[in-house]
Amino acid sequence: MSEHAVSRFPVPALEELPGDIRAAIETVHEKSGFIPNVFLALAHRPAEFRAFFAAHDALMDKSDGLTKAEREMIVVATSAVNDCLYCVVAHGAILRIRAKNPLIADQLAVNPWKADLSVRERLIVGFALRMVNDSASVTDADLQALRDGGLTDDEIWDIGAITAFFAMSNRLANLTSMRPNDEFYAMAR
Amino acid sequence: MSEHAVSRFPVPALEELPGDIRAAIETVHEKSGFIPNVFLALAHRPAEFRAFFAAHDALMDKSDGLTKAEREMIVVATSAVNDCLYCVVAHGAILRIRAKNPLIADQLAVNPWKADLSVRERLIVGFALRMVNDSASVTDADLQALRDGGLTDDEIWDIGAITAFFAMSNRLANLTSMRPNDEFYAMAR
Amino acid sequence: MSEHAVSRFPVPALEELPGDIRAAIETVHEKSGFIPNVFLALAHRPAEFRAFFAAHDALMDKSDGLTKAEREMIVVATSAVNDCLYCVVAHGAILRIRAKNPLIADQLAVNPWKADLSVRERLIVGFALRMVNDSASVTDADLQALRDGGLTDDEIWDIGAITAFFAMSNRLANLTSMRPNDEFYAMAR
Amino acid sequence: MSEHAVSRFPVPALEELPGDIRAAIETVHEKSGFIPNVFLALAHRPAEFRAFFAAHDALMDKSDGLTKAEREMIVVATSAVNDCLYCVVAHGAILRIRAKNPLIADQLAVNPWKADLSVRERLIVGFALRMVNDSASVTDADLQALRDGGLTDDEIWDIGAITAFFAMSNRLANLTSMRPNDEFYAMAR
Amino acid sequence: MSEHAVSRFPVPALEELPGDIRAAIETVHEKSGFIPNVFLALAHRPAEFRAFFAAHDALMDKSDGLTKAEREMIVVATSAVNDCLYCVVAHGAILRIRAKNPLIADQLAVNPWKADLSVRERLIVGFALRMVNDSASVTDADLQALRDGGLTDDEIWDIGAITAFFAMSNRLANLTSMRPNDEFYAMAR
Amino acid sequence: MSEHAVSRFPVPALEELPGDIRAAIETVHEKSGFIPNVFLALAHRPAEFRAFFAAHDALMDKSDGLTKAEREMIVVATSAVNDCLYCVVAHGAILRIRAKNPLIADQLAVNPWKADLSVRERLIVGFALRMVNDSASVTDADLQALRDGGLTDDEIWDIGAITAFFAMSNRLANLTSMRPNDEFYAMAR
Repeated sequence: MSEHAVSRFPVPALEELPGDIRAAIETVHEKSGFIPNVFLALAHRPAEFRAFFAAHDALMDKSDGLTKAEREMIVVATSAVNDCLYCVVAHGAILRIRAKNPLIADQLAVNPWKADLSVRERLIVGFALRMVNDSASVTDADLQALRDGGLTDDEIWDIGAITAFFAMSNRLANLTSMRPNDEFYAMAR
Repeated sequence: MSEHAVSRFPVPALEELPGDIRAAIETVHEKSGFIPNVFLALAHRPAEFRAFFAAHDALMDKSDGLTKAEREMIVVATSAVNDCLYCVVAHGAILRIRAKNPLIADQLAVNPWKADLSVRERLIVGFALRMVNDSASVTDADLQALRDGGLTDDEIWDIGAITAFFAMSNRLANLTSMRPNDEFYAMAR
Repeated sequence: MSEHAVSRFPVPALEELPGDIRAAIETVHEKSGFIPNVFLALAHRPAEFRAFFAAHDALMDKSDGLTKAEREMIVVATSAVNDCLYCVVAHGAILRIRAKNPLIADQLAVNPWKADLSVRERLIVGFALRMVNDSASVTDADLQALRDGGLTDDEIWDIGAITAFFAMSNRLANLTSMRPNDEFYAMAR
Repeated sequence: MSEHAVSRFPVPALEELPGDIRAAIETVHEKSGFIPNVFLALAHRPAEFRAFFAAHDALMDKSDGLTKAEREMIVVATSAVNDCLYCVVAHGAILRIRAKNPLIADQLAVNPWKADLSVRERLIVGFALRMVNDSASVTDADLQALRDGGLTDDEIWDIGAITAFFAMSNRLANLTSMRPNDEFYAMAR
Repeated sequence: MSEHAVSRFPVPALEELPGDIRAAIETVHEKSGFIPNVFLALAHRPAEFRAFFAAHDALMDKSDGLTKAEREMIVVATSAVNDCLYCVVAHGAILRIRAKNPLIADQLAVNPWKADLSVRERLIVGFALRMVNDSASVTDADLQALRDGGLTDDEIWDIGAITAFFAMSNRLANLTSMRPNDEFYAMAR
Repeated sequence: MSEHAVSRFPVPALEELPGDIRAAIETVHEKSGFIPNVFLALAHRPAEFRAFFAAHDALMDKSDGLTKAEREMIVVATSAVNDCLYCVVAHGAILRIRAKNPLIADQLAVNPWKADLSVRERLIVGFALRMVNDSASVTDADLQALRDGGLTDDEIWDIGAITAFFAMSNRLANLTSMRPNDEFYAMAR
């Protein structure tokens, strides 16, 4: 397998894929101009592919409560904790676009305490880091502190659930050695 | 909220739920004799509920390659690393049933190196622990060692993907302080 | 040596043992209906056996200050940190009996922050976890906080000393791969 | 309480102590020229005092298998891991005497990989460090490697049991903030 | 102090600086087209500034043995371990230039095990990670393994010394909250 | 190479050294009565030697703000975290001299929370430990707390910069297995 393979596991040809998965891939291809490798790597397992993107879209494709940029901040900061190359690079690009800020993704990936964040963003990212590093000891008092800081219960759930989803996603990417498309690295710099 | 609440977040009444979710809950209720709290806690977010159980079923409701007992071993051992009370207690019960072994769940939860495992089971659990603790540094050589030990690529994917799914699941349970039903504790002892 | 051996080290026959040790073992056999394996495993070293159980009894067979249930909570929570199968399983059983609570042992072993504990019990378990994980940095101010929470100095000593004793005990059990008797797993569920 | 107190807990006057404890203290006083503070601090709890020193003497006052110097090496190296001031300073002094080596205690306390150790001593200290840091994952294969390196099963038990005893001892010293006597620091330099 | 300050500590005006420091800054300004903030932040302490850049240049401005790109790889990989925003961003830019590879800096910063490295580069980066995370336990055998892999003793020293220098540099940047110039982020993408 | 070598790397003969380095070594030889091995080990790389001692002297050879004893406390406490035998032993000796206290070096090296420190010294050592263990998350609020405790900004910089310098120094000593001169161990006891 070449060092630059999309995945350590087999990647099916588009024409072998079930129609709905092929359609999803064609849609993202048109929209992005290239096929993000996560679609190809996970297509190896169609049922898991469908559930993965259903979960992803339920958490990431909305902007009530947390903005789309705030959601991507959670992804980048927590994926960096898990050393997930695909997620940091791909979602770093999306974050730069969503936040209209060319610096924020690298800042969050390298050192979230030095990132240019608002007080609200700092609260969001701080809880995401807690959830990725030590969710076990999160108490009612921790949640109350977030409410006192101005977050709603729906926002708190979203922070936790996005962090949880990417705890899965990061491990899938690390398992498969999922390669970020070269396009992501320089996007929106 | 009572100390014995199912979740820190609102739990919808069954009659308020979308039909498919209500049906899924009624099915599990009939089969188990009670409603496992994970169904109630996640029903707070129907779209996430659907994706969660779709992913769960895609990984856990099959027995080609890894047996169902082996799948549950992965869940118990890795959920213990994440201190997830719900997953260890509920899937501990399922593991005792699947493995027809009343001791194995506690052994895996407390000290997987002391559990009564076959060589194959030890290889499976060992890789699951690697994936939960440090997936980032998993190399091609690590996968080759698993193949050399007799695991197929599909089994390796399953170990990684089940560990990944429960890395998400553990965090959701810790976020919501999801309470295991009392029934699980003594089941199949 | 069978996978189900009591210990990795030789286990003497009862009739070879010094009279006092044999008598102690016969007493516990009568009381429990079986011989807990810790008695057999440590009988390999009579002088260490005597000192071990003298220390154990001095800390665990009393109920002034900390109740017997509270003492067992400390054992289960801290032995889980050290991944000690024997202590979690055997003392888990004793805790279920002492606390008349079939759930509390698993709760404390898996996630002490989610266990059904009173404020006082939470204080006790919290300090025990501190003592097992990082006793070095315990300051006078930490002890004062426990006093402010209502614990006496004798109770504080007991929490620390029980945690210390099981830090030893856990390592002996892990050294010998001491096997919990099958009876403990289902006791008082 | 003065910053230089022997213990954070009450230290009984010698004349208040049970006769056997008083006698033990007088014996060590005569032998050493001063009373090591561990005797005073633990005298607060006579039953625990007796069990503690019985265990200590069973492990430390013999020289079959491991030499007395090798036993003290285990104490110093593992007590340093637990940041136990009393044990490192007091047993550091004893080690310098036993090993007739003024440098070895500081070397083991600061960096055991740089200490002037023989191959056998390195094996002993290495297993002690494993037992103090991660006894849970010690397998039969680990013990076999020690046997292959020339250690007997009795020596292996002693390394593990001494490490276990000082895991207790270190926590008691940290709990009580047990102060090493000034005399120990410069002894046998 | 603005969120976008160069440093948490005072930054002297150029005209207040000693002549040699001012000259050094003017030289780098001309060469780079902007003044990298590390020059401004450290100018607060002229004697430390001089020693810092003397050490830097002694290690980084040469290409016998390790190439300049290899030296920058060490900086990026180890600075990422220390979460040093300045060093990862600034030296990431330099690495992209030196290695003529727009992807390598992000790869090394996020997950060095997934980076596109040659066998030699992997050996270099692997030892650098060992030196930053746990230099204490590096043994003669570790060095021999590097020699067996083809590295010279001078190259081994350089890997260790560059890692050591940036262990200092990372802490200075974290102390001062040294801000990477915006120019670095997009350079050589 | 003998077990007692000064360094794992070549140590040049004095007469081969550049004049300035030779002079520096002769000066310290006269002053101390022996040549501290750090001078010999680093002389292998003259340019690095010069920069190292320039940085060292800029931070350690002054006593405005932090006293010389306070500076050495930082060195001993943080070098112990990094398990650096040379720095703990050599600077432990210097600290005993500077602080006119034969106990303080061992106390700081083994357990800084138990050391006989003033409130000010505790603040200084506490921040040094933070800087060595986790400089990345140091915030403006952390610095403000130090100012509120009575430290000036120049003292805060010095604590951070000394810790940073010895993070480098510890790694160089661990790389080279730099051996502390025997003389240091017993000095000023």
